[in-house]
This record gives sequence, structure tokens and C-alpha cells, in this order.
Amino acid sequence: MAAAKTDHALERMVFFSDAVFAIAITLLVIELHAPELPRGSSDAAQLQALASLSPNLVGFGISFAVIGMFWMGHHRAFSLASHYSPRVLGWNLCLLGLIAFMPFVTAYLSSNIFQRVPAIFYCLVMLAAALLNLKVNRTATGPPMVDEHASPEAVAYVRQRGASVVLGSATAVALAFVMPAFCQAGLMSIPFWRRLLTWRGSRARA
Amino acid sequence: MAAAKTDHALERMVFFSDAVFAIAITLLVIELHAPELPRGSSDAAQLQALASLSPNLVGFGISFAVIGMFWMGHHRAFSLASHYSPRVLGWNLCLLGLIAFMPFVTAYLSSNIFQRVPAIFYCLVMLAAALLNLKVNRTATGPPMVDEHASPEAVAYVRQRGASVVLGSATAVALAFVMPAFCQAGLMSIPFWRRLLTWRGSRARA
Amino acid sequence: MAAAKTDHALERMVFFSDAVFAIAITLLVIELHAPELPRGSSDAAQLQALASLSPNLVGFGISFAVIGMFWMGHHRAFSLASHYSPRVLGWNLCLLGLIAFMPFVTAYLSSNIFQRVPAIFYCLVMLAAALLNLKVNRTATGPPMVDEHASPEAVAYVRQRGASVVLGSATAVALAFVMPAFCQAGLMSIPFWRRLLTWRGSRARA
Amino acid sequence: MAAAKTDHALERMVFFSDAVFAIAITLLVIELHAPELPRGSSDAAQLQALASLSPNLVGFGISFAVIGMFWMGHHRAFSLASHYSPRVLGWNLCLLGLIAFMPFVTAYLSSNIFQRVPAIFYCLVMLAAALLNLKVNRTATGPPMVDEHASPEAVAYVRQRGASVVLGSATAVALAFVMPAFCQAGLMSIPFWRRLLTWRGSRARA
Repeated sequence: MAAAKTDHALERMVFFSDAVFAIAITLLVIELHAPELPRGSSDAAQLQALASLSPNLVGFGISFAVIGMFWMGHHRAFSLASHYSPRVLGWNLCLLGLIAFMPFVTAYLSSNIFQRVPAIFYCLVMLAAALLNLKVNRTATGPPMVDEHASPEAVAYVRQRGASVVLGSATAVALAFVMPAFCQAGLMSIPFWRRLLTWRGSRARA
Repeated sequence: MAAAKTDHALERMVFFSDAVFAIAITLLVIELHAPELPRGSSDAAQLQALASLSPNLVGFGISFAVIGMFWMGHHRAFSLASHYSPRVLGWNLCLLGLIAFMPFVTAYLSSNIFQRVPAIFYCLVMLAAALLNLKVNRTATGPPMVDEHASPEAVAYVRQRGASVVLGSATAVALAFVMPAFCQAGLMSIPFWRRLLTWRGSRARA
Repeated sequence: MAAAKTDHALERMVFFSDAVFAIAITLLVIELHAPELPRGSSDAAQLQALASLSPNLVGFGISFAVIGMFWMGHHRAFSLASHYSPRVLGWNLCLLGLIAFMPFVTAYLSSNIFQRVPAIFYCLVMLAAALLNLKVNRTATGPPMVDEHASPEAVAYVRQRGASVVLGSATAVALAFVMPAFCQAGLMSIPFWRRLLTWRGSRARA
Repeated sequence: MAAAKTDHALERMVFFSDAVFAIAITLLVIELHAPELPRGSSDAAQLQALASLSPNLVGFGISFAVIGMFWMGHHRAFSLASHYSPRVLGWNLCLLGLIAFMPFVTAYLSSNIFQRVPAIFYCLVMLAAALLNLKVNRTATGPPMVDEHASPEAVAYVRQRGASVVLGSATAVALAFVMPAFCQAGLMSIPFWRRLLTWRGSRARA
């Protein structure tokens, strides 16, 4: 019974996290303001209006992918946990705070495209989220939270993935200083970092 | 234990999807702006204000029904699945991205009624969602995700329904080019397409 | 297994409903716009600004109570159900559509206080929700959905409560025609209607 | 079966509460409006714009922590409950109403920084939430709701924590009268009150 109760506490925390992720990812759309043209506008004017909204649309897409990526990591890490520990609660809440903050930084970046400060701000928030994500995922996949039957490979994968998101976000911060408009492209380096970490890991074990 | 854990991963993904569907469907209302008339306005003026809001109210109703329809399809498909597969995660996230995008396209269509570009844009988003929906539902009702006890008829029904939503959305896109104001009526062809597919299916089996 | 699957479908529908109720009830706050006074405003000016917002604050409170009341009825009805039936899905979705619509009608009423049309509109939406609520709760507490062990008293209570909410909403509609500012007071007649129905029920059984 | 049904009712109430907490905490971000500067603005202008937004950012952070704190208390209290009682429903709904109200009071405080009335208003709402929180948590950790295996220490901890949040909020109200800008600092007295209550409790037992 006692065990069932603590598992229930874990479930409720995971549920709360899921809800915040889901709300934040859906709230991104609130910052998109539909253009309203006078009746009888030409098709060209409408396409123009959509085109001038494209930074916002691209920003929506990228931030959706970013929050989705953090959610998938969270999902994968907690699928390996089966015990609750109050230790994870505070860190997880901080992570959720940054996730809930994403719609704001996305709107700020999209409304000030090609500028350095918003780009650095966006990437720093992402880096902070990546660090908290790593901390939360490490806690969830370590004792006392980890499931006894979780495969060590799965645990190693989750931790490597978390570390590569940190490295990818750091790359994005660096890019933001020199090429603000393309800072988010730094995230595309994540698979590269993951491969590097895997290679180093296998060499260390050999 | 391992099986229970993967089922848990499925449940959490379904839960996350439900949350995004629920938030998107409720956020539709945010794009409705309540008219504010000076104190002492006549009843006629109030009715006029409501009447001029009618495209938005109709748009709210239709998009509520559209998201509801996608949710019901998702609900039906996943009620036949009992195993988790990471393969479905990415496609499902893309589908949710388009669902979360619906409040924006609804607002865009409602504020630019009778215009061709917004109508085509709305219907294309719906078509893309229908295609992703078909992909997700096929994955959920196929191996390795499908429940061993799921009836083949139920699986066939889910897949046919998914295909007829695609055909109905394509009809809506076609209508948007010629009669932008009534493009959403294309969705009313869905039951027709379903009947056609059922008839073809039964002929093929005979 | 098959039974477990259909129960799961019921659970997921209940979950989706809960999420829509929770989002609608929380979105009410979005229509409250915080006054922003110049720095150094006097305390009196601040209190004045809050006072002029009081119709909106009262409207928020009442609509919170209204949605909460519908949620509690839903909660009570479905706690007596243990089987899923696709028959309830469509009605439930219509009910949720009206619940999601509440933030809009609340804002409309609060911004046009003392006017007849907004009051009638608000009360008609509430009446429609009450009728759908009655239909959904009757379906959930009747065969094939009702739990075999549900007490007949509990079922009768849920149905009587649903009926008295309909009568209370009808009273509110009638009040809206003659005293728009106090139409919501019609809801206070709900306990009276419930007592009347209980009395009639006990007389019929005697 | 009957027991399982009532546990289900408890679970659904907890779920609904979690959803409202999660939505309210994420909606805080909606009141943050991203600055939009003309293209080609200097880095200094951007930093200036961010700096002038800092009261709002700090307000977001503090209210996130406040709602998070209430959620953690709720989470801890209900992890000790295993039976449903309709008695808790109304109080819990009132608590959720105040939580859903937090985004509004946060926006009001942030837009009128250094002013007395908004500060007192914010702290009074927090105090009311703290009192309801105490009532709900006491109900959840008392008969008939409390789990038979819940440790008396855990129950005592939850109740003491609830009481110290009330005292901390009262301190914040008092501070709001004399130092409006720092009223929220009153919350920092919560650990102090907890220690005092623990010390008094241990002295009473000795």
C-alpha cells in the first residue's frame, strides 16, 4: 500500500509535468495574430500578409519542436523511473517554469528577428532548460527513483541525449552572438554531439 | 513489469495528446472578442453587434467540430492499441502541432471571410492534419502497437474513417478555390466517401 | 481484456472532459484586464480602478461557480458509470463546446452590464448547457453505461439535480427579460426546484 | 467495487485540481507582452526594453513559485488521502478559483509596481488561498479521507506547513501596508514560522 501511494505521487508529478508541457506547447499559438484585411483584398495582398507573418510561423514551428523535444526526453526518462523521490520536485518545477516561459521568448524573438539580444536571450533560456532537463533526467534515472528492471543501455541513452541537448543549446548560444538570425540552427548540432558522446563512451568502455 | 512500463509510455503519450486536443479546442474561444457597447445601447444595436460577429461564431463552431472529429478518431484508434512503439511519437507530435495551429487558422479565416487565400490556407492545414491523422491511426492499429484482441472490423473501420477524412479535406481544398465562403462544406462529403470506401471494400472481398 | 479496453475508453473520455472543464474555468481570467495606472497614483485612484472592474470580477466569480457546478454534476454522474458507450460521445462534445464558450459569454455580459440582449444570450447558453448536461448525465446513469452496483438513490439524485439545473436556468432566462442585471440570480432557485422535485418524487412513490 | 469507485472519484478530483494548477501556472506567461522594437535597434535599446520589463519578469517568477508552492502542498496532502469525501469538493473548488485568479492579480501587481493597493490586493488573495489551502489539506489528511497507513508525522508535517503558509501570507499582508514593493518578501518568513510551529509542537509533546 505504501509503495502504491509513492508510485501514485510519481504519477501525479508526471501528470502535472505533462499538463504544463501540453499547455505551453499549445499557448505558443496565442502569440500568432491573424492578419485582418479589408473585404475585397486581392489574393496577392493576402499572400503578402501571410509572407510578412512567416518569421512568426517559423518561430512557432521551431519552438513547438523544441518543447516537443524536451517533452520526449522527459517522457523517455520517466518511463525508466518507478519510485518517487521528493528530491526531483523542485528541479522539475524549475524546468517547467522555463518551459512555460517559452511562449514569451518565442514571441520576443519572432517580433525582433535578426537582432542579437533577443536571439541570445532565447538561446540562454533554452540552455538553462537543457541544464535543468539534464539534472531532472539524471535524478529520474538514478537511485532511488530508477526502476530495478530498467536496462543500463536505456539509462545511458537518456543521459547521453540530455548531455547532447546541453551541448547543442550551448552551440546555439555561441551562434546567437555571431549570426542571430540562425541561432536556432545550433540545435541541429544535437545529433552530432550525441554521436560524439556515443563514440567517446564506447572508446572508454573498450 | 517491462510490459507494464511500455503500456505506461503509451498511456502517457495518449494523455499528452488528449491534453493538447483539449487545450486547442478550448483556446478557439480566445479569438472571439466580446463586443462592448456604450451603456444604454438599444437591443437592436446589441443584436446587430452579435450578428456582425456571426462569421466568428460559426467559425468557432466548425473548428470545434473539426478538432472534436480528429479527437474522436484518435480516441477510437488508440482504444485498439495496447503496446507502445516509439515510431508513433514523431508523427503524433506533428499532428498535435497542426491541431494546436487550428485556433490561428480559424481566426484568420473568420476575419477574412469570403476570401480565397485564407480559405485555401485553412483547408490545406486541415488536409495536412488529415494525412498525419491517417498515418498515426494506421500506426496505432497495426503491429506492433495493435491489441491482440482488437477486432479486424474495428481496425478496418478506423482506417476507412481516416481515409474518408483525407478525401473530405481534399474536397474542401478543391471547393476553396471556387467557392471560398463554403469550403468547409467539403467536410460534409466525409460520410459519402466513407460509404464509397465501404462499398469498394465489400466488393473487393466478394 | 475487452472489458478493460472499453473501460479505458470511458476513462479517456472523462479525462478529456475534465481537461476542457479545467481549461474553460481557468481561461475565464483571461478576459479580466488588469488596470494599469500611472506611477504615483493615489490609493483612492487605485481603489476606484478596482471598483470599476467589479462587474467583471463578479462575472468571473459567477461563471467560475457555474462551470464548477456543471463539472460537479458531470463528476457525480460519471462516478456511477462503469461502461463505455459511443452514444454519449457526441452529446458530451456538444456540452463541452458550450462550456468552452462560457468565457466568451461571460466577457460579453460583463462588458455590457444591465443590458437585456447580453443577459438573455448568457442565460440561453446556460440553458442549452443545462439541457445537454441532463442528456449526458441521463445517458451515463442509464444502461448500458451505469455501474451494476450504483445505488438507485444516487442515480435518482443525479437525474433530479440535472433537471433542477434546467429549471433554474429557465428561471434565469425569464428573469433576463425583466431584470437583466440580476438574471444570474435565477440560478439561486436551483435548490428550490430540487426540493420540489424531491417532494413530487416522494409523493409519487407513496 | 464500491470502494474502487469512490477512490476513482478522489482521483478525478485530484486530476481536475492538477489541471487547474497547471493551466494557471502556465497562463501567467500570457500577461507578459514581448517588446517589439523597430528593425535595426541597437543592442542597448533591446537591453533597455528587457530591463523595463523586469518587474513583470520578476512577478512571473514569484507567482510561478507561489502557485508551485500551493501545488506541492496539495500534492503532499492528497498523497496521504485514499478515500473520497464530497465534503472537500466545495472548498477545493474555492481554492482553485483563487489559484485561477492569480494570473490577474500578478498582472495587476506587476503593472502597478511600488503602489500600496495592488500590493495589499495581491497579498490578501494569497492569504485567502492560504486559508483555503489549510482547510482543504486538513480535510484531506483527516478522517474519513486519510489513508489508514499514513504516518502521523507526515500528517502533522502537512498541517504545520499549511499553517506556516497562512502565517507567511499574513506577514506579507502586513508588509504590503508599509513596504508595498517588497510585500512578497513576507513569504520568505514561511520557513521561520514552520520552525516556530515545530518547536512549539515538540515542547507541547514533551
